[in-house]
Amino acid sequence: MSKVKCQISISADGYLAGPNQGEEHPLGEGGMALHEWVFELRSWRESHGREGGETNVSDEILSEAITNTGAVVMGRNMFGPVRGPWTEPLWNGWWGDDPPFKVPVFVLTHHEREPLTLGETTFHFVTEGPERAVALAREAAGGKDVSVGGGETIQQLLRAGLLDEILVNQVPVILGGGVRLFEEIPPSVQLEQTRVVEAPGVAHLFYAVR
Amino acid sequence: MSKVKCQISISADGYLAGPNQGEEHPLGEGGMALHEWVFELRSWRESHGREGGETNVSDEILSEAITNTGAVVMGRNMFGPVRGPWTEPLWNGWWGDDPPFKVPVFVLTHHEREPLTLGETTFHFVTEGPERAVALAREAAGGKDVSVGGGETIQQLLRAGLLDEILVNQVPVILGGGVRLFEEIPPSVQLEQTRVVEAPGVAHLFYAVR
Repeated sequence: MSKVKCQISISADGYLAGPNQGEEHPLGEGGMALHEWVFELRSWRESHGREGGETNVSDEILSEAITNTGAVVMGRNMFGPVRGPWTEPLWNGWWGDDPPFKVPVFVLTHHEREPLTLGETTFHFVTEGPERAVALAREAAGGKDVSVGGGETIQQLLRAGLLDEILVNQVPVILGGGVRLFEEIPPSVQLEQTRVVEAPGVAHLFYAVR
Repeated sequence: MSKVKCQISISADGYLAGPNQGEEHPLGEGGMALHEWVFELRSWRESHGREGGETNVSDEILSEAITNTGAVVMGRNMFGPVRGPWTEPLWNGWWGDDPPFKVPVFVLTHHEREPLTLGETTFHFVTEGPERAVALAREAAGGKDVSVGGGETIQQLLRAGLLDEILVNQVPVILGGGVRLFEEIPPSVQLEQTRVVEAPGVAHLFYAVR
């Protein structure tokens, strides 16, 4: 049975992005520090068309996640900094001509738009809400897992009971402000710690959502 | 060289206590769930005059921390729910006639009070601020470590650069509100992840403060 999963890097103070997010600072000020552990990993480099890289325990975890992902659901905030109706010139994502997903991506938005194919990735724009996006992604994933990206979307799915697993990549950095992962999540959401892995510069905390 | 350390249990959403803290709910509503992993440990039971208990990896960590602690610094919030000048009947802490510390305890307060001895523990009330409390505790610790308790006090010491090490006991529970550990901590505070330990129902995250 395919699972709906997310993995997200957060600071010691619980932020998934720093303050003042925007086109200049996609991850907010200081937010890049949350991802430094990932950029040297072989599986990250491979999915971004680069060679070489580290093959430590973080790489194993990331590599497994990439291999098992059959579709992606993301929020409009992760797709881009633009808001409101789509206008020319159309924003086509942060990732250039060949985005690293290489599976169908379902973007949650309030504004209709034709599918967009770039390289091996097709973005579908879903206006019928997160439940519908997850259903479409499950179907497209062909038995593999659905990976959810973007803090707001993860929160939405967590509140709606649509998320099965969360991998928190806990990074030893203080951002001091920004967007928190667990913000206004009700205590009725039950987590079970299923695995904890120590890695260089990051702790991988695996939770099942009950 | 003795170190100034703290260990604190926090929820997945970063709270060290639930909402509505007070005499009825010393740890806030739902806050007790942060400490369930500790109550069955042999070293916790022993320090509270009880026999038996689990001897897993959490117990080793706690036991080592207890053995290495020569003095404690805590905030008035941890000492009790009362505020303002000390009035009769005097509040003598949450812990009864034989508090589990069994080392000198320095309580930060704005209001002078004579030292209070209960069982093997003496509480000293320090009105000259956190730096002075840490200095007194270091002296009293006789080469052992100083343990800091209470969320506000930990925050104060962290901001003031008085804390050497933090052990975050990350518990897989959502509290949805309360008091956060890392609240308004400036990004200038640098953490280094020194050790990560998986244990039943808790992840132990060790940080050195730079």
